[in-house]
Amino acid sequence: MKALVYKGPGNKSWEEVPNPKIQKSTDVIVKMVATTICGTDLHILKGDVPEVEVGRILGHEGIGVITEVGDAVTQLEVGDKVILSCVSSCGRCSYCRQGLYSHCLDPEGLAGIGWIFGYMIDGTQAEYVRVPFAENSVYKMPEGMSDAEGILLSDILPTGFEIGVQYGKVNPGDVVAVIGSGPVGLAALTTARLYGPSRLIAIDLDEARLKRTLDFGATAIVNSADADWKQQVMDLTDGLGVDVAIEAVGLPQTFTMATEIVRPGGSVANIGVHGKSVDLALNVLWIKNIGISMGLVNTNTLAMLLKLVTERKLPVENFVTHEFTFAQMLEAYDVFGHAAEHDALKVLIH
Amino acid sequence: MKALVYKGPGNKSWEEVPNPKIQKSTDVIVKMVATTICGTDLHILKGDVPEVEVGRILGHEGIGVITEVGDAVTQLEVGDKVILSCVSSCGRCSYCRQGLYSHCLDPEGLAGIGWIFGYMIDGTQAEYVRVPFAENSVYKMPEGMSDAEGILLSDILPTGFEIGVQYGKVNPGDVVAVIGSGPVGLAALTTARLYGPSRLIAIDLDEARLKRTLDFGATAIVNSADADWKQQVMDLTDGLGVDVAIEAVGLPQTFTMATEIVRPGGSVANIGVHGKSVDLALNVLWIKNIGISMGLVNTNTLAMLLKLVTERKLPVENFVTHEFTFAQMLEAYDVFGHAAEHDALKVLIH
Amino acid sequence: MKALVYKGPGNKSWEEVPNPKIQKSTDVIVKMVATTICGTDLHILKGDVPEVEVGRILGHEGIGVITEVGDAVTQLEVGDKVILSCVSSCGRCSYCRQGLYSHCLDPEGLAGIGWIFGYMIDGTQAEYVRVPFAENSVYKMPEGMSDAEGILLSDILPTGFEIGVQYGKVNPGDVVAVIGSGPVGLAALTTARLYGPSRLIAIDLDEARLKRTLDFGATAIVNSADADWKQQVMDLTDGLGVDVAIEAVGLPQTFTMATEIVRPGGSVANIGVHGKSVDLALNVLWIKNIGISMGLVNTNTLAMLLKLVTERKLPVENFVTHEFTFAQMLEAYDVFGHAAEHDALKVLIH
Amino acid sequence: MKALVYKGPGNKSWEEVPNPKIQKSTDVIVKMVATTICGTDLHILKGDVPEVEVGRILGHEGIGVITEVGDAVTQLEVGDKVILSCVSSCGRCSYCRQGLYSHCLDPEGLAGIGWIFGYMIDGTQAEYVRVPFAENSVYKMPEGMSDAEGILLSDILPTGFEIGVQYGKVNPGDVVAVIGSGPVGLAALTTARLYGPSRLIAIDLDEARLKRTLDFGATAIVNSADADWKQQVMDLTDGLGVDVAIEAVGLPQTFTMATEIVRPGGSVANIGVHGKSVDLALNVLWIKNIGISMGLVNTNTLAMLLKLVTERKLPVENFVTHEFTFAQMLEAYDVFGHAAEHDALKVLIH
Repeated sequence: MKALVYKGPGNKSWEEVPNPKIQKSTDVIVKMVATTICGTDLHILKGDVPEVEVGRILGHEGIGVITEVGDAVTQLEVGDKVILSCVSSCGRCSYCRQGLYSHCLDPEGLAGIGWIFGYMIDGTQAEYVRVPFAENSVYKMPEGMSDAEGILLSDILPTGFEIGVQYGKVNPGDVVAVIGSGPVGLAALTTARLYGPSRLIAIDLDEARLKRTLDFGATAIVNSADADWKQQVMDLTDGLGVDVAIEAVGLPQTFTMATEIVRPGGSVANIGVHGKSVDLALNVLWIKNIGISMGLVNTNTLAMLLKLVTERKLPVENFVTHEFTFAQMLEAYDVFGHAAEHDALKVLIH
Repeated sequence: MKALVYKGPGNKSWEEVPNPKIQKSTDVIVKMVATTICGTDLHILKGDVPEVEVGRILGHEGIGVITEVGDAVTQLEVGDKVILSCVSSCGRCSYCRQGLYSHCLDPEGLAGIGWIFGYMIDGTQAEYVRVPFAENSVYKMPEGMSDAEGILLSDILPTGFEIGVQYGKVNPGDVVAVIGSGPVGLAALTTARLYGPSRLIAIDLDEARLKRTLDFGATAIVNSADADWKQQVMDLTDGLGVDVAIEAVGLPQTFTMATEIVRPGGSVANIGVHGKSVDLALNVLWIKNIGISMGLVNTNTLAMLLKLVTERKLPVENFVTHEFTFAQMLEAYDVFGHAAEHDALKVLIH
Repeated sequence: MKALVYKGPGNKSWEEVPNPKIQKSTDVIVKMVATTICGTDLHILKGDVPEVEVGRILGHEGIGVITEVGDAVTQLEVGDKVILSCVSSCGRCSYCRQGLYSHCLDPEGLAGIGWIFGYMIDGTQAEYVRVPFAENSVYKMPEGMSDAEGILLSDILPTGFEIGVQYGKVNPGDVVAVIGSGPVGLAALTTARLYGPSRLIAIDLDEARLKRTLDFGATAIVNSADADWKQQVMDLTDGLGVDVAIEAVGLPQTFTMATEIVRPGGSVANIGVHGKSVDLALNVLWIKNIGISMGLVNTNTLAMLLKLVTERKLPVENFVTHEFTFAQMLEAYDVFGHAAEHDALKVLIH
Repeated sequence: MKALVYKGPGNKSWEEVPNPKIQKSTDVIVKMVATTICGTDLHILKGDVPEVEVGRILGHEGIGVITEVGDAVTQLEVGDKVILSCVSSCGRCSYCRQGLYSHCLDPEGLAGIGWIFGYMIDGTQAEYVRVPFAENSVYKMPEGMSDAEGILLSDILPTGFEIGVQYGKVNPGDVVAVIGSGPVGLAALTTARLYGPSRLIAIDLDEARLKRTLDFGATAIVNSADADWKQQVMDLTDGLGVDVAIEAVGLPQTFTMATEIVRPGGSVANIGVHGKSVDLALNVLWIKNIGISMGLVNTNTLAMLLKLVTERKLPVENFVTHEFTFAQMLEAYDVFGHAAEHDALKVLIH
């Protein structure tokens, strides 16, 4: 089969590799129908994630059809069209039983975290994929759902919702600010509407991206390049700050921005993947009665979000901006790697 | 009357001052029966809290008897023996209605925070005190409760419980670590038992203080001066870390310790008053699915804790180590200011 | 002034009565701008609520302008346009501090419950009203809000939201059924959307009322006169029942319907005012892991709902079907008393 | 092997039957070390549960050692000493993923509920047992735990805690009443202490049983045979009723008692297995802002309770009153069947 293979820092190739095989009785093999590229894939390609071995097939999002099932798999069948969760989890350990799939104690005997696709094991940018713990890690895709909808459920919608909205404890009536308008920030913005906020403020440096947030539910936009950006945010509240500030960038500055606009009693929800530590002004914040949350997605809301997308209660038609065939994988990387130039959000490869 | 007056950095005096008067219809005047000294008072005396004016009467904890009530006060009477909350709150603003008394929008027209006694208005280390918004800020003291018990309810028990235990989301079966064994750390340790933890680990640098924690409910002690302190903590868990790490010191190092011993899915609850910012290792922590909380006490659990102390369900007899008369106020400061030498926890002045 | 006075079972009169006066320092006097009629008023008029004395002015919903304030009132001024909560609460008792205003321990010295307007004290169907505990019982009405919007916030929107949606624990993705399509049932239906349900099923016996529910957010309707109504509901779920069943009628049969369609793990929220006990099939239900809730509105979400109405996040333009002047009060009663004939929901008297 | 076999209403036998075999790859076979008898077993023997087939081996509680594992079982080994959950659950269906194991959608292909041992499949009163979905249904028993402790974790401790205490939402400071002092009522009483109640009131008709509750944590006892029992309960509160009323009998009268003593804003938690419907006074209760819960145990807190028992934080040494060998099974039934005469609580067969 063909797959996108990591060849060391700066190098990748769409090349012929052996087909995956069932290794454990809880595995299934999936023939991929669609996949996509995540910012994390770009980081790996740069060499920023040294634990990824040369030869690894990348990708952790995707839709496919089951072609083979392990002996212990009874709730899935060959022919089932499924959405793959970006997180692999055994479903039986103490963390899985709490729904904390992100910290599954035994994702393939790889103690640590549940994200292993395209990282510790071969991923989804391939024609076929072996899916471990399949019964806990794939979800049947309903009739009538498009690839462009389904692909969002592997990672970005659950990430925005669980780590941004739920960890941020958005409640009806809240004023919510989302810092960063990339795909995950927009996923947080869109899914925040599930808890009836009164205002949704998008904050970003890029005017074009900011304008696009209005299609995803933002009720106000603030350009953080403006000297008075903070005052603009405050003016959109009762003067005390936002109820929930969601960080979806991953830089020290944007994290600090979130802590500066949150009101007493409010929440800062960090979604961003950070490469550096940040200076936390505890000398100011200790008295503010705020909570700060962070984490990797569990996808334990995937089934619920899938239901809402099916019922057209979660408008997600604006996420996919570009489509490619599997043969155009490298082209897809090129476009996504220069997202700003191409005005790209998510690229769909199918 | 006599009161303990702040005379500028390094200076205080127990001197004659005018008696307080009712200023608003929601005030009461209380003749103090007992008061105590808090670490914050020492900070103010050092000059670390410059917004405190020279001439301010210090203290924010106390018990007393009502001698006068304002016209709008109907639920309290002259002669009622009451415990004063360290937080003053109007009870009517949007924050008060949510129980976030610490951020009352109008504590005496002093927008900001609800802690004003001995800070923005005259405090409780005096023979008489004016209590604003009395109906929302004092609690009737039951028959049979001792001064040594009642005095703890003004501040340290609610602080340990609300900001440490509740914000830290202690649940039955949890392993909880409390860093710092001063009065507030011990209050967190003791009140953590209200949520049925399986283990309570006290962490401190001082062996004598550590031993004392066993009287307050600690099931294990770890001296953080030991090179392997962190491993000692991990060995007291299933190897993944504690469910809840409570910081009760207020230093960057101790805060960082808390973030290092918390397990994935766990909570860090900061009670410490910090004078500096801290370096938060978001590059490591972003993926750990933890929450970090912080804040000023609301005392919205004061009435509940009072009930538990009355029912002897919360053993608090070990907090007061030294007793003084009001006339010995300066001596009490001397002992509390050198707590380690005197093996002092809380000093009771009555 | 003129007011609608209860003259004993079956009798009412719009007549001249003395203007109300400030009785306590926490009172305000309000000149009414708008009021409305509730089903409860009809019950009282029938004589079903014998504790209501002859001579009582009816009504517990309304908007007005403050004309006089008591001495202890500092957060409200003459001239403020306000929405009156249907519940009066002191804001200081243990229940009020928990937000359980409905069970205020001292609503005017009338221990019991917080609904006293038009019941234990004179109500809002009058030109002027005395409002006890005004600072805890009225909410400033924002510029630009219409009377037809504001009037809903006194009672029916908070009731539908608090007792139906919040007590019923509606969560994103849920399938919610609302039994009964009167004003309160529609309020529950509309506000349920604040928690992102996947489906909202309206159940009623009347086809005209059912059709109208589609304007309030219903995604499916079921006529409970159909022999297979229950199967119709089940077919709108995954076959296991609805997540939340809200009862908004007040009859034994409709309550039982709710318990029959709720899924294991789901909730039944009773809003209906019941005149009889009901037979609860605990022999069947004990094993179903369900919760059943009930209660009087607290209006502790009034301020939040007001914000959402102001931000146009809660479409409420379809509730008021008929408008009258104060002089047409009896005509308004006539229309509301025969709501089905007139296709009436809420009548606005202003 | 030998097993206790149901031979039709009124008849049972301890007889030789074939050893169980692995049927699915997720099964294990367990050699029983200890088992016990539950009130439900007596009901089945009376013929009250007609769906139980003649020939069924009874029992749903037990401890044993694994002697054989299915092909898909990787987290358990032959030789592991384990506690069996009374509920069997697949761990993969939508209910299991929420922790609602009691309503597992596929317990052995037997849609409905997760309690199947000694009911739909052969149970634990036998020398060997086949355990379906073993990785989700057994828990390793720690060194040093006695059989008399371990046996309580199969059913009664989780039932009392989950369905009584957690569903009843016991909070620190609460006054809690438990109606019924049988094993499950005592389990609720004991585990209620995990949430720091201020008072624990045991209510029963039998003076001897009532006295025994004091060993399990009751702080007050009330004999419901007393004419003024209700007043006695009220006098143990602030006059408004208990925060949480737990029903652990299963009769209409006792359920009604619970609804009569609960305060506004409180909870009624039904644990009792009911054979009849009950008359619920919604005409009185609709306005009381209470919640009523009920359900079958999920055992999703079994691992946590096991930790607390291991740490000696949950005193459980008084539950087992009688011990027998497996060969004395019929004698054990005789004693448990006449529990009052023998002053028996739990009988341990090992």
